[in-house]
Amino acid sequence: MYKIVLIRHGESQWNLDNRFTGWTDVDITENGAKEAKAAGQLLKAEGFSFDLAFTSVLKRAIRTLNTVLDEMDLTWIPVQKHWRLNERHYGALQGLNKAETAAKYGDEQVLVWRRAYAIAPNPLALDDERHPRFDARYADVPAAELPATECLKDTVARVLPYWNETIAPAVKSGKKVIIAAHGNSLRALVKYLDNIGDDEIVALNIPTARPLVYELDENLKPIKHYYLGNQAEIEAAMNAVANQGKAKAA
Amino acid sequence: MYKIVLIRHGESQWNLDNRFTGWTDVDITENGAKEAKAAGQLLKAEGFSFDLAFTSVLKRAIRTLNTVLDEMDLTWIPVQKHWRLNERHYGALQGLNKAETAAKYGDEQVLVWRRAYAIAPNPLALDDERHPRFDARYADVPAAELPATECLKDTVARVLPYWNETIAPAVKSGKKVIIAAHGNSLRALVKYLDNIGDDEIVALNIPTARPLVYELDENLKPIKHYYLGNQAEIEAAMNAVANQGKAKAA
Repeated sequence: MYKIVLIRHGESQWNLDNRFTGWTDVDITENGAKEAKAAGQLLKAEGFSFDLAFTSVLKRAIRTLNTVLDEMDLTWIPVQKHWRLNERHYGALQGLNKAETAAKYGDEQVLVWRRAYAIAPNPLALDDERHPRFDARYADVPAAELPATECLKDTVARVLPYWNETIAPAVKSGKKVIIAAHGNSLRALVKYLDNIGDDEIVALNIPTARPLVYELDENLKPIKHYYLGNQAEIEAAMNAVANQGKAKAA
Repeated sequence: MYKIVLIRHGESQWNLDNRFTGWTDVDITENGAKEAKAAGQLLKAEGFSFDLAFTSVLKRAIRTLNTVLDEMDLTWIPVQKHWRLNERHYGALQGLNKAETAAKYGDEQVLVWRRAYAIAPNPLALDDERHPRFDARYADVPAAELPATECLKDTVARVLPYWNETIAPAVKSGKKVIIAAHGNSLRALVKYLDNIGDDEIVALNIPTARPLVYELDENLKPIKHYYLGNQAEIEAAMNAVANQGKAKAA
């Protein structure tokens, strides 16, 4: 039996501003740093340790991971960063305020953009300076694989090869693994692990910086999963994520 | 022509306490964090960028590197951590105050321990809890390679395989490299690069958190090297390192 820990980055500046972030490299807030610190302390108090960490190439996930590892006195473990663990690319929506966008296009359209499994927002234009092809960190990624927008289905399709080829073999080799990533790259992974249907995944929300433990059998099929920490707080945090796309936030 | 940057960690708590540190995993001080920040800002202002970073498995070097990369907005680059870049192992001296040790054994004996090329202090006993075999981060290192004390010659002998097999090929492949390490692992590397004699290396001191640039030819032979920043400050910092082992510090 294996145990892995998934963790979404702490609150980012654009979580706070309620803007679509995607691949924009926004940092975490002071509150996000506190969340990450608390997560590291909780993992340590619960007796967790790690041999290997995976994260995206976006600083909100990297800083969250570094903070967690710092609290656990584990900054010395190997950390592998990969674009395939990045947040879902939000295309032309990146930078827009979620509530304003909902006020303009309606809650329903925004819910489609945020949660419809196979419908992507408009892509960034090839000459848009926000296009990832202008960013040095993606210089080695083949143009055909570099997204300018994604639906969750697209995110699943690019997260899974990294899980199958890199993370899963490490877990099977006995390494204790933590994955620090993003709301949608983690939803993509959880959808796969728990075999969640395309329609059901829409209702699944992952709160920021709460350690999510998966216990897996010898074939890496989940036996159970649970969040560490205060369960009422976690439920409130999940509801807050669900409400972000409404014109009037709860 | 290639360009690499070496950087010793910022001031650590035991630099401040003037204690022999070696493989003890001491953190940097607030001042050390400021030094690291300034080094990152300086590298950025001077137009440096990096594709790949190497560091030890000790937190004072890792935190210094993370701080430098943070200032340069480069936390996303790959970071490879390896024990072969650790500080020289100081054996049974680890934890002792340098000035007190000098008052007890004489400045000359301490200079021998600190700087004689081929004379190591007494080793840690195999059952000493500070022995690296009890530390999870060295679990994969063969027992025969794991030091319980080192002279600089020993440090050179274990740093060079990592330079030759891992760092040098990366540099030759065109990657822009930074190495964040320690006073003696960097002296070991510099001794090799500049072909410094066993007797002359004793007088070479590397100040904390000052970017040291090496320009190398196609065979990785140095063309020139220089510290970035205020040269008078750097000279004062080098002299301070040289004076640490005296009973009455300057």
